[in-house]
Amino acid sequence: MDEFPGALGTRASLALRFGQAIFAGASLLFMCFDIQFYSYTAFCFLVTIMGLVIPWSLTLAVADAFSVFVKRPTLQPGLLSIIIIGDWVLSFLSLAASSSTASVSNLLMKSDGSFCSTKLCTRYQLSAAMAFLSWFLSLASSLFNLWLLPTS
Amino acid sequence: MDEFPGALGTRASLALRFGQAIFAGASLLFMCFDIQFYSYTAFCFLVTIMGLVIPWSLTLAVADAFSVFVKRPTLQPGLLSIIIIGDWVLSFLSLAASSSTASVSNLLMKSDGSFCSTKLCTRYQLSAAMAFLSWFLSLASSLFNLWLLPTS
Repeated sequence: MDEFPGALGTRASLALRFGQAIFAGASLLFMCFDIQFYSYTAFCFLVTIMGLVIPWSLTLAVADAFSVFVKRPTLQPGLLSIIIIGDWVLSFLSLAASSSTASVSNLLMKSDGSFCSTKLCTRYQLSAAMAFLSWFLSLASSLFNLWLLPTS
Repeated sequence: MDEFPGALGTRASLALRFGQAIFAGASLLFMCFDIQFYSYTAFCFLVTIMGLVIPWSLTLAVADAFSVFVKRPTLQPGLLSIIIIGDWVLSFLSLAASSSTASVSNLLMKSDGSFCSTKLCTRYQLSAAMAFLSWFLSLASSLFNLWLLPTS
């Protein structure tokens, strides 16, 4: 396995994974904290996906940290494929969730405060923005790891 | 360039491209025909993206048809990269557009006919479903072409 920046087991990958977990956590906080989000399907979808992204990213961050700070393990190609497929699926799901949330919160905002106050709508939009950032980092991770597949 | 089923210049690719164009056209028809779709941002986004997918897929379908029925041209690697990047970008955009449309039409449907009648809401949902199918075929095309990149 080469040292390819951003691929599994490097410092850049560790930073990407932490970024994903932090943005997904921020999205969850904006969405869930003191809001009854479960009356909208799109928001429930976002919460579910972000709840999946956080443990996935943290687990891989721990693996990266081990590889960076302790010792580089030899990776099975089968394991790498599973990680890449999981990354891709989660990245597609988080894109779908964040765009659903963005469009629904935009629609609610246009309804002149009959569904949500301006403060609440802004929080929905911030949550969607955080989910977009998490998707972007997740896409970067999966692209870098895909690069690694033929060389492994 | 090998003969890889589904990659650029094969019969499977031709079928995929036609499928994309047909589903995108169906999505546009369900959305635009006799409906004032432009009052919702998500629907405008869907119409824009499907309007981009149709010419893109038809152009590549013509190239595939030429390659299948007339003669296989030698492909520049630079051109293949442009096609793959375009495929990926359009596939991400159509996933975002279809999930936005699905969530917004779901929200409108729950509002008990005050925003759209049942018939109209069903058409919105059908349009989102067609866009999802178009995204799926577009993803398949881009994956097959990505496979071709290292061998070209």
